[in-house]
Amino acid sequence: MDKKMLTIDLNSRVLLDKAEKDGVETMYDRKLGFKSQCGFGLQGNCCRICGMGPCRISPKTPRGLCGADEHVIVGRNFARMVAGGTAAHSDHARDIAHTLALSSRDGNYKIRDEAKLIALAKDWDVETEDRDIYDIAHEVADIALMEFGKPHGVSRFLKYAPKKRQEVWKQYAIEPRAIDREIATIMHSTHIGCTADIDSLIHLSLRTSLADGWCGSMMGTRLSDILFGTPTPRRTEANLAVLEESKVNILLHGHEPSLSEMIVLAAEDPELLELAKEVGADGINLAGMCCTGNEVTMRHGVKIAGDFHQQELALVTGAVEAMIVDVQCIFPALAKVADCYHTKFVTTSPKAKITGSTYIEFTEENAYEDAKKIVKEAVLNFKNRNKEKVLIPELKSAATVGFSVEAVINKLDNVVNSQIDPAGTVKPLVDCLKSGVLRGAAAVVGCNNAKGVSNEAHVTIMKELIKNDIIVVSTGCGAQAAAKFGLMDEDAAQKYAGKGLATVCQLVGIPPVLHMGSCVDISRILETVAAVANYLDMDMCDIPAVGIAPEWMSEKAVAIGCYVVASGIDTYLGIMPPVTGSSRAVEILCGELEEKVGAKFTVNENCHELAATIISDIEKKRVHFEKLVEEKMMANAEA
Amino acid sequence: MDKKMLTIDLNSRVLLDKAEKDGVETMYDRKLGFKSQCGFGLQGNCCRICGMGPCRISPKTPRGLCGADEHVIVGRNFARMVAGGTAAHSDHARDIAHTLALSSRDGNYKIRDEAKLIALAKDWDVETEDRDIYDIAHEVADIALMEFGKPHGVSRFLKYAPKKRQEVWKQYAIEPRAIDREIATIMHSTHIGCTADIDSLIHLSLRTSLADGWCGSMMGTRLSDILFGTPTPRRTEANLAVLEESKVNILLHGHEPSLSEMIVLAAEDPELLELAKEVGADGINLAGMCCTGNEVTMRHGVKIAGDFHQQELALVTGAVEAMIVDVQCIFPALAKVADCYHTKFVTTSPKAKITGSTYIEFTEENAYEDAKKIVKEAVLNFKNRNKEKVLIPELKSAATVGFSVEAVINKLDNVVNSQIDPAGTVKPLVDCLKSGVLRGAAAVVGCNNAKGVSNEAHVTIMKELIKNDIIVVSTGCGAQAAAKFGLMDEDAAQKYAGKGLATVCQLVGIPPVLHMGSCVDISRILETVAAVANYLDMDMCDIPAVGIAPEWMSEKAVAIGCYVVASGIDTYLGIMPPVTGSSRAVEILCGELEEKVGAKFTVNENCHELAATIISDIEKKRVHFEKLVEEKMMANAEA
Repeated sequence: MDKKMLTIDLNSRVLLDKAEKDGVETMYDRKLGFKSQCGFGLQGNCCRICGMGPCRISPKTPRGLCGADEHVIVGRNFARMVAGGTAAHSDHARDIAHTLALSSRDGNYKIRDEAKLIALAKDWDVETEDRDIYDIAHEVADIALMEFGKPHGVSRFLKYAPKKRQEVWKQYAIEPRAIDREIATIMHSTHIGCTADIDSLIHLSLRTSLADGWCGSMMGTRLSDILFGTPTPRRTEANLAVLEESKVNILLHGHEPSLSEMIVLAAEDPELLELAKEVGADGINLAGMCCTGNEVTMRHGVKIAGDFHQQELALVTGAVEAMIVDVQCIFPALAKVADCYHTKFVTTSPKAKITGSTYIEFTEENAYEDAKKIVKEAVLNFKNRNKEKVLIPELKSAATVGFSVEAVINKLDNVVNSQIDPAGTVKPLVDCLKSGVLRGAAAVVGCNNAKGVSNEAHVTIMKELIKNDIIVVSTGCGAQAAAKFGLMDEDAAQKYAGKGLATVCQLVGIPPVLHMGSCVDISRILETVAAVANYLDMDMCDIPAVGIAPEWMSEKAVAIGCYVVASGIDTYLGIMPPVTGSSRAVEILCGELEEKVGAKFTVNENCHELAATIISDIEKKRVHFEKLVEEKMMANAEA
Repeated sequence: MDKKMLTIDLNSRVLLDKAEKDGVETMYDRKLGFKSQCGFGLQGNCCRICGMGPCRISPKTPRGLCGADEHVIVGRNFARMVAGGTAAHSDHARDIAHTLALSSRDGNYKIRDEAKLIALAKDWDVETEDRDIYDIAHEVADIALMEFGKPHGVSRFLKYAPKKRQEVWKQYAIEPRAIDREIATIMHSTHIGCTADIDSLIHLSLRTSLADGWCGSMMGTRLSDILFGTPTPRRTEANLAVLEESKVNILLHGHEPSLSEMIVLAAEDPELLELAKEVGADGINLAGMCCTGNEVTMRHGVKIAGDFHQQELALVTGAVEAMIVDVQCIFPALAKVADCYHTKFVTTSPKAKITGSTYIEFTEENAYEDAKKIVKEAVLNFKNRNKEKVLIPELKSAATVGFSVEAVINKLDNVVNSQIDPAGTVKPLVDCLKSGVLRGAAAVVGCNNAKGVSNEAHVTIMKELIKNDIIVVSTGCGAQAAAKFGLMDEDAAQKYAGKGLATVCQLVGIPPVLHMGSCVDISRILETVAAVANYLDMDMCDIPAVGIAPEWMSEKAVAIGCYVVASGIDTYLGIMPPVTGSSRAVEILCGELEEKVGAKFTVNENCHELAATIISDIEKKRVHFEKLVEEKMMANAEA
């Protein structure tokens, strides 16, 4: 098999050829090296939770040594994936909360969105009158940090959901307690000899996932906006051609904004720019990958170099002076790839040390100095670049990014008839959905997965949806796929969107696929759906909105999938999770959950079929939605 | 292979025959059914952490899709085992802390050890003068609960370790922060794209394990003693013959004391005793399994029915009216076994629901009523017993149990020359170690593992050690093996112990193997070693004391092994953990750690060889110990 057929990105294909020539191994080589994957692992029915195992379930051995059957084993493995994902997202939020606690008027971290801070402070009963904004910030930070470990009570963010949704959570007993406690509870409950009931395991998984979606992730986004500014629309470019031959190229990869925000500042430091000149460069060029990339493009328009599956290929360009990483989704393989070029591979987090990297610990306390030190390393490395080994591919796309909820509402105000309606609401969006000009909304999010062809499912599904007048919002590597393939450019509406969506895009002034941020920013999507539901006095499950993870790969995605379903939003996966070993797990996740939380999972690894199913399901949901709308109109008319 | 050869317990063998006749499947059948176990799983180099996998490391595929090599994969899997174990133990402590918060003078839960509560309160700067003991208890409970989630600071229990040990932890940066946070940190750090460095993964594992040993477990023990009384020596009996044909037999299985303490009370309730008479029984007979069994035998002398590997066989007697379980180490298989008899299999914890069981949720708020309800179910079930299906095997052993640290010191006072020395110290033990009458001390703890022959390694190693004048302390299923095989009876000293140990046992009035409790009570062992080290002004790694887990099986055992090593106590395993896939993991765990924390792991699956190694290592450590003792004597003499 030609490994170039494993991606639809033409830049990637060019660089795969170069990697071959340079003798560099990439994920695509490793993928071809794995002739087949373990069937037990794929189905999720291999248990390694205790030291008597591993035990694998087959017709001849239907139970593990302790008697756990396939449902128990699949359920425990699944729950632990949710715990891993929730831990990752929420730890991200914890770091931001710590950063907020360190914010100061004269320090590295300042309050950039005072209104958002004050709103949150008021929601949390923090005194705001006649107080220094930094005192308020510190008190909010202290409360935020307690969300991880408070011994009593449930998440403070649940109240942002529609009342009806809150009732569902209460009734099904999945209101999440402290985030870390939920993670510990799953780890305990899946220990040998604890929960051995698939319904209970999925119940625990949903509760923990809500600690991610409606606490950790939401906090991560909220506090990031407070500290670094709520994103507003701005232009950028995407794909590996954003690297510049004449400049010091620094790639920001990972997930958190605290370091990358400082790098953005440091890259503009006159001293370092001067140094760049001294070493013969035309300047310093920052570009982002994965969610750190999303964070800085949302707030500063920093160019998007590429996605999860391009992290090695970015180094294969030979034009990267430093790849600076924080946490999550960083290939350990980068150390080896960097070794083949002059690239400095700099790790910075005690939570993600990588053998073979240069470790320069980043601390929020000493943030700007740390960032300068790291950028300086990159600049000084420019002279080591081997020009003969440089190949920057040609393709890139223009994109508009930065669609926070506030930015979306602000754009919607463009079409508000100010004679009749107030500004600053989701009414125009609601009107489009009610009238059917927009058939629905879809969040297409998530990773790239080596089980499929990189970007294919993302791009196929997004194009199909917008063609059918379904507006798409995106985060994570899904957003990067959209940006790379031109779907976040305003002209994409005319090129790809159906008539209704194209009209809306033109009137409002947005592309048909909106970049809403990094993977913790899926909370922005939850808040948007919640806003629509609140506006209509409906539950979230009544809205013709869906979640889609066409190429999901990480445990974070499993946690996300669960909290999106638990929020009442039907969720579609393009990769089968390791649950098929248990018929009960599949029945519950893809069926019975609907009765409990009003939504369920649907999985199809054929992206064309998946797109067709989604479109058809949205139309079905519209019948329900339109009926509800009508009932409410009648009720209002009567009243 | 004859499955009866898979256990050395003769009662178990009798019941395996009966199970065969009754058509009941047990773990031993399943063990024979597994022709072989997956080599990748056994070695730990199969990664299922992301949805691109599973990836398995072999010479042809030396790296997973992300580039993770065998060291990364083994290290991440290992760290997650530590997280699972720490979560289990610590959640146990959390429940006890919640129970303490509910304690009241007139309620179900009272303060039984006021002195211990007041000592802890003082250590934690809680005001104790002129205060109601329950007010103190509630404030202590609140502080204890914060140990799980406090945003700042390290474990409050670290200070009970010798100063030198605390220094080691500080220097190696493994002082644990809040318990749940450490668990979340591991789950995050082992997420795809985070920590990819075996040294760092083991470092994280040790820090988290210390959150278990020197926080969660220690808190569990301390608060249990405060609530239910600090154990004192008492007589009991062990093995399945403790079931009584004429009585209602209730088995208590699992790990926590909050429920079982109430069951002990309920089983003495006149109303229920009357009911038992009505249904034709001579009374209610409680017996324990696993650590719930250890909790109630330590404090009430409740008989020990058996260990982890006998849980199914206990039901095969046909004489058990109810098996009541809380959390951990409960075979899901029990549901099926119970179905073959009249036994009610009652689950009680939301953290351990089991398909096919009768779920009667136990809440501390309504503890006694819940317990009575459960016992009543058992009593009413007596009439359903099929006498033709009853076979209670004949063997049982007498034992003395209940050796808390305080009980040990109290016993030691028997030999204190009150003219010269103060009572209430470990001086007599220290003197025995110094003089060499006792060559050393060994904690033989842990589970049963189907990889070996049930009980064989435990009994072989304990006998070898005591023969060589090494005093043994034990907890968990190890303690149950010792009790069943007569090693906890006073006459065992004369039968099995070397001359030195036998003399000490006779003088002090103790058996050669001391029952110190359940698996969280390994903290008692830590405190004993710490007391000896403190007395001698040494570090814990200077004392000729070792930890041994001959038949370990659970993730808790992995966490325990790590915190025992991190406490400076060499640890010996009779079952290989899934780490052999990484040469670096083995080098660090079984070698390099010694330079960092003063102790390391040794693994040998041949129990005779393992015993010989331990004895030889203790003698080597004695050389170091005796030299230190001499140096200190010289220094004192000079001063």
